[in-house]
Amino acid sequence: MYDLYIGNRLFSSWSLRGWLMLEQFNLPHKVHMVGLYSGTMAEDLKPLAPARLVPTLKTEEGLVVGESLAIAETLAERHPDAQLWPQDPTARATARWLCAEMVGGFAHLREDCPMQLRHIWQGFNPSDAVRADLNRIETLWSHAKSVKAVDGPWLFGAYSLADVFYTPVAARIIGYDLPVSAEASAYCKALLSEPAVKAWRRDALEETYDPMPYDLSLPHRDWI
Amino acid sequence: MYDLYIGNRLFSSWSLRGWLMLEQFNLPHKVHMVGLYSGTMAEDLKPLAPARLVPTLKTEEGLVVGESLAIAETLAERHPDAQLWPQDPTARATARWLCAEMVGGFAHLREDCPMQLRHIWQGFNPSDAVRADLNRIETLWSHAKSVKAVDGPWLFGAYSLADVFYTPVAARIIGYDLPVSAEASAYCKALLSEPAVKAWRRDALEETYDPMPYDLSLPHRDWI
Repeated sequence: MYDLYIGNRLFSSWSLRGWLMLEQFNLPHKVHMVGLYSGTMAEDLKPLAPARLVPTLKTEEGLVVGESLAIAETLAERHPDAQLWPQDPTARATARWLCAEMVGGFAHLREDCPMQLRHIWQGFNPSDAVRADLNRIETLWSHAKSVKAVDGPWLFGAYSLADVFYTPVAARIIGYDLPVSAEASAYCKALLSEPAVKAWRRDALEETYDPMPYDLSLPHRDWI
Repeated sequence: MYDLYIGNRLFSSWSLRGWLMLEQFNLPHKVHMVGLYSGTMAEDLKPLAPARLVPTLKTEEGLVVGESLAIAETLAERHPDAQLWPQDPTARATARWLCAEMVGGFAHLREDCPMQLRHIWQGFNPSDAVRADLNRIETLWSHAKSVKAVDGPWLFGAYSLADVFYTPVAARIIGYDLPVSAEASAYCKALLSEPAVKAWRRDALEETYDPMPYDLSLPHRDWI
């Protein structure tokens, strides 16, 4: 049983990634909520020092791991049968590239379009910089699909950590109604239609947020 | 034989990381220079698309891998006997955390103190934000040493990818004479005294830079 420390389900994209790494590969875990917006995060995470961000993972042996990519690699290594990474070495190397580029990249998309799972915002006009990020994301997704020609909705055939890492990206694309190709849009909707993601969103909507760190009076339509 | 594409030896911290991953673990490679400052980088990297940054790795089979962490994991997986990561699982998970936090973090140090291997700049006054980054780096290094009590200069006993990833950080600390503890300073000097790093710097000083993207008239003293 893993202990997973997360911030907030409606707005914390990193929390969603950490949880999907466990949930989607059937790795038993207990979720602990940390006060990301209430101001208690530093205090809540003190027992896990030097971890100071969400997600943070703790193993049964007491090993604490911070940073999403380190958590991902550690889980993949501890559970080879769960196949967190693609099994083909070329696909796996490419999946790692896509995840690492996600972690360090797409600054404008992340800055301008904070993840929110509540509604689909209408009338958002992405800057050229955000459009360039979207373009890059589509290039990487196309590259993934070309590495090993595979069928199905996921980037490398079977659902993998690459799909986990891009789920919050999909939530930004859908949640701000951003302009992407029909193929990319279908992939985003597939990611967000996973039962685990729907369950996460259901829980997110039931949580209380005080203050709600998001303006809900903006024009919007219902989530997919 | 790997093909490694790098930018520039004197100023490109990511290039240094990519090269050390191969050089320090005796993985045969051929270096290709890309016009990082001359403006030809996009053109030079076109054959490796969608890679667009340095370092980029190409394997003998033609697999292209971008992003330093993806290159690191791919090399570690392909060469288990070379022991790129620490052998102990707890140390390995922690090393991955330190590398991932380096890749995504220390924004102020990286912004204010671009790597340069030429001289030790005198009179640089780090901002509070840079000092906070330094504090965090020292916390992580102490944590590394505490995970498995080990002797010697390196973070996890044997020299590992964690030491590779922090070598350019050490170059910033030494190159701007930044205030760190005696223990951290000794670690920085050990990283920069590795024969491979010295050889890299020797090559860096022999390269021509036109224009030199750095003001050399600033007060300075000799490199360590």
